[in-house]
Amino acid sequence: MPILTLTTDFGIEDEYVGVMKGVVHRIHPAATIIDITHYIQPQDVIQAAYTIASSYHYFSSGSVHLIVVDPGVGSDRRIIALEKQGHFFLAPNNGVLTLLFDDKNTEAIVDVRNSRYFLEPVSQTFHGRDIFAPVGAHILSGISLSDLGDFIEPDQVVRFNVTRPLLRNRQVTGRIVSVDRFGNLISDINIHHLNHICKNRNIASVHVKLGDQTIKGLASSYQSRRDQEPLAIIGSRGTIEIAVNRGNAQHYFKADKGDIVEVHI
Amino acid sequence: MPILTLTTDFGIEDEYVGVMKGVVHRIHPAATIIDITHYIQPQDVIQAAYTIASSYHYFSSGSVHLIVVDPGVGSDRRIIALEKQGHFFLAPNNGVLTLLFDDKNTEAIVDVRNSRYFLEPVSQTFHGRDIFAPVGAHILSGISLSDLGDFIEPDQVVRFNVTRPLLRNRQVTGRIVSVDRFGNLISDINIHHLNHICKNRNIASVHVKLGDQTIKGLASSYQSRRDQEPLAIIGSRGTIEIAVNRGNAQHYFKADKGDIVEVHI
Amino acid sequence: MPILTLTTDFGIEDEYVGVMKGVVHRIHPAATIIDITHYIQPQDVIQAAYTIASSYHYFSSGSVHLIVVDPGVGSDRRIIALEKQGHFFLAPNNGVLTLLFDDKNTEAIVDVRNSRYFLEPVSQTFHGRDIFAPVGAHILSGISLSDLGDFIEPDQVVRFNVTRPLLRNRQVTGRIVSVDRFGNLISDINIHHLNHICKNRNIASVHVKLGDQTIKGLASSYQSRRDQEPLAIIGSRGTIEIAVNRGNAQHYFKADKGDIVEVHI
Repeated sequence: MPILTLTTDFGIEDEYVGVMKGVVHRIHPAATIIDITHYIQPQDVIQAAYTIASSYHYFSSGSVHLIVVDPGVGSDRRIIALEKQGHFFLAPNNGVLTLLFDDKNTEAIVDVRNSRYFLEPVSQTFHGRDIFAPVGAHILSGISLSDLGDFIEPDQVVRFNVTRPLLRNRQVTGRIVSVDRFGNLISDINIHHLNHICKNRNIASVHVKLGDQTIKGLASSYQSRRDQEPLAIIGSRGTIEIAVNRGNAQHYFKADKGDIVEVHI
Repeated sequence: MPILTLTTDFGIEDEYVGVMKGVVHRIHPAATIIDITHYIQPQDVIQAAYTIASSYHYFSSGSVHLIVVDPGVGSDRRIIALEKQGHFFLAPNNGVLTLLFDDKNTEAIVDVRNSRYFLEPVSQTFHGRDIFAPVGAHILSGISLSDLGDFIEPDQVVRFNVTRPLLRNRQVTGRIVSVDRFGNLISDINIHHLNHICKNRNIASVHVKLGDQTIKGLASSYQSRRDQEPLAIIGSRGTIEIAVNRGNAQHYFKADKGDIVEVHI
Repeated sequence: MPILTLTTDFGIEDEYVGVMKGVVHRIHPAATIIDITHYIQPQDVIQAAYTIASSYHYFSSGSVHLIVVDPGVGSDRRIIALEKQGHFFLAPNNGVLTLLFDDKNTEAIVDVRNSRYFLEPVSQTFHGRDIFAPVGAHILSGISLSDLGDFIEPDQVVRFNVTRPLLRNRQVTGRIVSVDRFGNLISDINIHHLNHICKNRNIASVHVKLGDQTIKGLASSYQSRRDQEPLAIIGSRGTIEIAVNRGNAQHYFKADKGDIVEVHI
């Protein structure tokens, strides 16, 4: 069962997502469609970038991932397609794929223009239905990315400036990049950063500072702390996460995306 | 993969939708079930009518569409089934199918009564689970609508009074009929109405009035206007939509469903 | 199509649920995954228990049900698996399966420990992805529960104390155990309790007391009462439900889960 995933800011209150699925199934009746989320904050390209980068590798090779967070819909912004590690991505050229690229990135990137694979007439406001869904279904059906349009140069791909954690001798400074439903604060400081500053010391003994509070040590589980006690833990993305056992860290720390997190040994 | 769609006001916080899907799969294990939405406002028959009418034709012919917005559940209101253009619809007889009918409408309409296809015992409060899901699955399995009950006369079908846009010489007056997650205000004024009032003039030069504000011209994309600037555009349903680039038109205009929209050339 | 259901407190704003589905499909590509709900209140084990107990029997025999409401994730709390009436359940050992057990319960219960079926490395915060999803997919694929770990004694299974309705001569006292999206207040007083107190009298003539208000008689449908009038009805779980026709009983009664409901004849 070939898989097509959806990451959008459409919400599920309106018919938009259902209609996209209808279009996919008309072209590829055996598709398995999986929602990654439809609750990217409206037009939040950076949140979408972190979401797809943290998610795609849990799906089978051969999956097609549509990322439709697209404030430029209907304008002359491009739609791009690329393959990376056996996964296919289709997205507006607005930065949502930024975190999939690294310096040695050599993936071929296609400027999707071949209207033969579009749902005609293409509306000015809903390319999710008229371009992303049908093109994604055709990719799932096995057409080659080169059928979709010309290859473009890597420097034509829009990327946002990723602020990477700053490593010093015994300290790393990063940021909160996501906040989940539980209010857990997910940073961009990963295990490699911790190993770098800790060298031979135990990473479980780091101090994690957020706002004017410092948490001593890493927890091995949420429940290893008292109820309503704040804690730092290696979270599911493999990065430092700040949480409150049976509580909400976002409320506790009055913190939000972009806030600075410092870890020192 | 035969498709069954769901349009309800159940939300997804409770187990109701999942249980309906369980019942469908017990009867038709190969069904592909697609959620159109479960966030029709509780008991808002008119919103449900616009949602299904704007959506169903994006699904494959042969799809079965369940519309379960049903304040009369358990009363003597009927449940009706009909086929239109190769699509099957199953809904309470309360007006939710109003927009599928037109004056030349000749579809045969069945009064669904044959309890052989129901999940017994039928509860008084959840016909979605006990009637709609199993009957829909049986329709998907190929039973004839005439197996479900007797045909009824068109005048026994409940319809609400649809206020159609009013065309004058150079002006058309319509209404906001939907507001989406982004706060976009979707009217019932379509491209045919615009062609009618514009004759040989360019429809892109119409003026669109909502409340005490007038928007000059139609935009070709949201982004063709400045951030936070209001605009009018032909939206994804093919009707005039009022939006704010990277903003929320519902908040900007303090507008809601039912509000008057005037377009003149 | 074998079915795997999901009952979690993850919400759908984050990528967590989508990623779990990706993991299931990698192991069992033909799985049909059905969401029961992802809106259990964070860490509300009791709500999860009522939800799965009211839902599972509507799914096909052979279904695998994952219940991931798991404040103890990453701690030494166990994960347990069991089979009941042809259904398979996988859950943390924290009480979420309490309502599936009764006094004559003899199901074999497995302590899930065999990491061969886990997604390695297992994170400290997301066993939904790393244990529940892959183990559930393997159960769906037909492995025996005994492959997952050792059997444990029934007294090692965590159960919360279920407050059952109290029957007196002509009165039964129960509680609100769920509140749904419509504000309907669902109690634990079922038809057997009513028959017990009513004996030969008509159960439709009971009085239902919530707070300082008493509702006379049971309704046969929501709509059998005037708009905004409160009513009591046998709801979809077969228990007394208190509702307001075209209104919201939770707001009307200012009631919540745990509140006492008294029924007398």
